[in-house]
Amino acid sequence: MKNINQLTPKEIRALIRKGKWNRPTAGLALGYAQANLVVLPQKYAFDFLLFCERNPKPCPLLEVLEPGQYRTEFLSSDADIRTDIPRYNIYLKGKLETAVKEIRGFWKTDFVTFLLGCSFSFEEALLRAKIAIRHFEENKNVPMFITNIPCKPAGIFYGPMVVTMRPIPVDKVTRAVQITSRYASVHGAPVHIGDPLEIGIKNLRKPDFGDSVTINKGETPVFWACGVTPQAVMMKAKPDLCITHAPGHMFITDLLNEELATL
Amino acid sequence: MKNINQLTPKEIRALIRKGKWNRPTAGLALGYAQANLVVLPQKYAFDFLLFCERNPKPCPLLEVLEPGQYRTEFLSSDADIRTDIPRYNIYLKGKLETAVKEIRGFWKTDFVTFLLGCSFSFEEALLRAKIAIRHFEENKNVPMFITNIPCKPAGIFYGPMVVTMRPIPVDKVTRAVQITSRYASVHGAPVHIGDPLEIGIKNLRKPDFGDSVTINKGETPVFWACGVTPQAVMMKAKPDLCITHAPGHMFITDLLNEELATL
Repeated sequence: MKNINQLTPKEIRALIRKGKWNRPTAGLALGYAQANLVVLPQKYAFDFLLFCERNPKPCPLLEVLEPGQYRTEFLSSDADIRTDIPRYNIYLKGKLETAVKEIRGFWKTDFVTFLLGCSFSFEEALLRAKIAIRHFEENKNVPMFITNIPCKPAGIFYGPMVVTMRPIPVDKVTRAVQITSRYASVHGAPVHIGDPLEIGIKNLRKPDFGDSVTINKGETPVFWACGVTPQAVMMKAKPDLCITHAPGHMFITDLLNEELATL
Repeated sequence: MKNINQLTPKEIRALIRKGKWNRPTAGLALGYAQANLVVLPQKYAFDFLLFCERNPKPCPLLEVLEPGQYRTEFLSSDADIRTDIPRYNIYLKGKLETAVKEIRGFWKTDFVTFLLGCSFSFEEALLRAKIAIRHFEENKNVPMFITNIPCKPAGIFYGPMVVTMRPIPVDKVTRAVQITSRYASVHGAPVHIGDPLEIGIKNLRKPDFGDSVTINKGETPVFWACGVTPQAVMMKAKPDLCITHAPGHMFITDLLNEELATL
């Protein structure tokens, strides 16, 4: 077998579909966009679509499927979102009930699938510009924090924005803003630069999710909206059922990150 | 009374609400964004929201209201979309039934309101960059054409994209692309530059809507997605009921065009 790092998105999805890869997808199919998954019964679909429309930074829509549809059209021509993600979380009334390797048995004809952009895309762009990513260097998960920035509510959905933090050398902060601004469909420009207290974060060493990373002298903490926001929102809104990817276990698309960039 | 050109958006909306202005809104409240209106019963709302999400160039969402809500939150804090537009079109099963000055009597608690960006915003930006707008110079309505570019369908909604055409001097075409790219929420960058036949337009002198304008030697026809697209789509999808603004009679917002610009 070829090393998985050399495989195409289609080949990796085939492995995942056969149950031969159930680990996180970070670092796989470099150059290709990965996506967050949210599946909801149709009765919640308008509210959640509106929530995404009102909160494009934490919830940037890459593709939304018609009710019952489980094949993407835009992000891939041959993927099945019921089987092509390594690990799924199933939430019942806002509570994580179980994690599973495929969701064919759970599927209902009124399920609506939302695929949201993921920060892996802009991290690659930062690396190309020689802006190091600390959690990569330290082989950790990105630190994530619950802020005091409220999302704009929509229907039953509401809650605070979750952000990721990356320490950036002070002389590269402007460049980091410029680069990530090009990627509006994968969280885009930072939501905050500098003092974490301004957005309700009391201790940068104690992230709410993920790992703590080193912040060196001469570095500014920079905060981007995070795709964990919808999962936090589900815990508050408590829909009867919601299926998401398990954190880090993303849907790998056929779309190049560069195809997502503007200007 | 002050000249209407000196009034604020709030003052103009108050005049419209009292029935004292029932004409087109082009040229009013310069600097402020104007918006297209689409109102649909809730049963069509998910499909149309999805249609907008899939077709952001012809249908750029500025604000979507919760079912039954008729007051905007983002575009203005004191507007009532049932009364603050000079003229409304009412479509029954896709057919224009009547035009009215206010829609309070038609309002139902399940109506969902969509406000979409309008090209007035980027036209002002072009003018600021000394790129003349021919239909202004000739005191006409912008020429609009039905193209062979299909919109991405969503639920019951489908149809071809409608575009506007503006002749641009060849040495300013690149600049016009750059400027309008900054305004993604008001139709954004052109969808086509040059040969109209490539997008199914046979005769530039015979627009499907609006007026024909002069194209001089040394000018390239440049085509932008047009906010008439949703009305064309309604005629095909034939929802039981749809209320829109009457063409040219827009909702004047409190948002500056510059607040809509990116980068």
